[in-house]
Amino acid sequence: MMLEQIAELKRGIVDIVSEGELLEKLKRGRPLRVKVGFDPTAPDIHLGHTVVLQKMRQFQDAGHDVICLIGDFTGMIGDPSGRSTTRPPLSRQEVLENAKTYQEQVKKILDPKRTIVRFNSEWMDTMVVADFIKLTSVQTVARMLERDDFKKRFQSQHPISIHEFLYPFVQGYDSVALEADVELGGTDQIFNLLMGREVQKAYGQEPQVVMTLPLLEGTDGVLKMSKSYNNYIGVDEPPRQMYGKVMSISDGLMWKYYELLSTLRLGEIEELRKAVEGGSLHPMDAKMRLAFEIVERFHGREEAGRAQEEFIRVFRAKEIPEDLPEVALVLERPWICAVLKEAGLVSGTSEARRMIAQGAVHVDDARVTDAELVLDKGVHIIKVGKRRFAKVAIG
Amino acid sequence: MMLEQIAELKRGIVDIVSEGELLEKLKRGRPLRVKVGFDPTAPDIHLGHTVVLQKMRQFQDAGHDVICLIGDFTGMIGDPSGRSTTRPPLSRQEVLENAKTYQEQVKKILDPKRTIVRFNSEWMDTMVVADFIKLTSVQTVARMLERDDFKKRFQSQHPISIHEFLYPFVQGYDSVALEADVELGGTDQIFNLLMGREVQKAYGQEPQVVMTLPLLEGTDGVLKMSKSYNNYIGVDEPPRQMYGKVMSISDGLMWKYYELLSTLRLGEIEELRKAVEGGSLHPMDAKMRLAFEIVERFHGREEAGRAQEEFIRVFRAKEIPEDLPEVALVLERPWICAVLKEAGLVSGTSEARRMIAQGAVHVDDARVTDAELVLDKGVHIIKVGKRRFAKVAIG
Repeated sequence: MMLEQIAELKRGIVDIVSEGELLEKLKRGRPLRVKVGFDPTAPDIHLGHTVVLQKMRQFQDAGHDVICLIGDFTGMIGDPSGRSTTRPPLSRQEVLENAKTYQEQVKKILDPKRTIVRFNSEWMDTMVVADFIKLTSVQTVARMLERDDFKKRFQSQHPISIHEFLYPFVQGYDSVALEADVELGGTDQIFNLLMGREVQKAYGQEPQVVMTLPLLEGTDGVLKMSKSYNNYIGVDEPPRQMYGKVMSISDGLMWKYYELLSTLRLGEIEELRKAVEGGSLHPMDAKMRLAFEIVERFHGREEAGRAQEEFIRVFRAKEIPEDLPEVALVLERPWICAVLKEAGLVSGTSEARRMIAQGAVHVDDARVTDAELVLDKGVHIIKVGKRRFAKVAIG
Repeated sequence: MMLEQIAELKRGIVDIVSEGELLEKLKRGRPLRVKVGFDPTAPDIHLGHTVVLQKMRQFQDAGHDVICLIGDFTGMIGDPSGRSTTRPPLSRQEVLENAKTYQEQVKKILDPKRTIVRFNSEWMDTMVVADFIKLTSVQTVARMLERDDFKKRFQSQHPISIHEFLYPFVQGYDSVALEADVELGGTDQIFNLLMGREVQKAYGQEPQVVMTLPLLEGTDGVLKMSKSYNNYIGVDEPPRQMYGKVMSISDGLMWKYYELLSTLRLGEIEELRKAVEGGSLHPMDAKMRLAFEIVERFHGREEAGRAQEEFIRVFRAKEIPEDLPEVALVLERPWICAVLKEAGLVSGTSEARRMIAQGAVHVDDARVTDAELVLDKGVHIIKVGKRRFAKVAIG
């Protein structure tokens, strides 16, 4: 039972420090306090953020409490060195507004009854500098420079302001203040999450279990999902747009999205994958299932259904190339096989009959099943197989 | 006039950043605020510390105010990493007691009317962490690692706790709080003193002029004066001990002590030096002058006189080697020249006469001026020149 719970909690996890400690904590039977930090500067949550929210929800479903820690103390400082123009200091008002937006957005994924929202200004605003200096003694300069981004900047002689060294201690102390049992974060957060363990130990607390989740690739399938790369799917985007963006990802990326974003169990996802690989399920249908699930989560079943219908309509229309060759035919009796032959879509009427028998001929989005069909006069979009199209005007 | 003042203020100074700025500040005619930091952990001041105190006194004599900044905020934190056992955190009570001792000791050198004592806990205790973090943004990790001791430790992979990076900012901010015009310190403090300039600029203040003084070598003439090297002369040491320690330094080191510790003007010191070099003044007499001046400063004229007499007595006794050759002579008429010849101290009576004429012959500490002198029978200590001695028993 507990092993099953652990297997589900470990789903999608990249690093866990340590599994033994997690098991130990779960054994005690009391609800765990699961901390996740949120940056108050970017209230527009996208699917990349929801990876960790989904994991939080799993913890909630297993009976644990999650704490959304809004880093408002840090957010209100901004970047005092002025090196980063992307981090202007926020006012108290802005922080509160952003936090409200967060809460609106995360409540679609989290269980409000087991969700605690805290602000680290609660304890950081009243901390005295002497205690803060003591706090920073738990780590060394050399260890700090092992953090990936610091290491790269230091080696390439890009300036690192001292205050940047201090933020990880704030994050670490947040775990002390919250008495966190577990902290979740992206793989890029591993250093700061581990710092929480160091700080907790220094303050005589049992160190938190650290679990990292992969950074979700954006719709391009290459870079991590981010507003700045314009490859993101925002949770507040309109249903059709959201549906379409999910449909635009590659078939390979789809399985990663399934693992990290779907509430399907791992076994169910595995079945879908086998069906696609065996040819009994078209990849696009698998992707539509995912898109539907995601849109349903943020906009409800009805909107998801509408988005799906719209997608199908637009997609079908899109299947026909814009630079469609136009053919004008004058035929007394526009028999389908003759039309196909005259329009150059088949080599002769026998190929036409064969294609129709295979179900490969469509006229105006309708599959042709009768090889003796006679078309009406006028303009028709005719498609043979996947690649051959023509716009045929029959006079 | 101002150039003379500058020349005197620059006496003994190793670095000044910058002379132009100092000139500019002096030109304005208002008293400057001259800051010097004191470590509250070591209240026993030795002569090494007085180098900077003498410089402070010079500033006072030129009409400026000096501020003794007691770093009690830092002292009460100690070394939270526990790596250094020599820096236990001090209690408020200990800090105040140490500060009192300081004041007792420095008032022998400084003018109490122009001496301000401040504690940096006055502003650091009430600073909020957010402002402290902003403060640390004025410097980069790379620049911090340029500081000599950090550089060495970093390169040799000895741990540097992050909190050690923070103390220079406290020292720098002290200059802001005090609106310091000048900060004095040892050459080993140059990095922290310059940090004060950076911090003042960041807070919109005119940067302080930084002046460093050499680290005084201890009585061994090699290592810097320090309690831990046991080569120090404490300002609270008894007069005789203090006098004797000054007399124990080498002739070369004496001139450095003159420059850094004496209140003689540079011109007067130069005259002394020329007299010694020209042979008209014995180096020991020059050193006795220095020892007298230093003991007088801390214990008064009378005690200095007594210490000097005692030194002469002991020194004279010491001049006679312990393994003095003993000569027994039986002479009817112990004529000094005959005694010198028989004791083997001169080659013949004519050398004996010449040495007496030069004043180079002493019997029982009294100079012999009469070459016809006849000694009493009994035991005499006889000295010829600097190196020839004998204990002569005349029967």
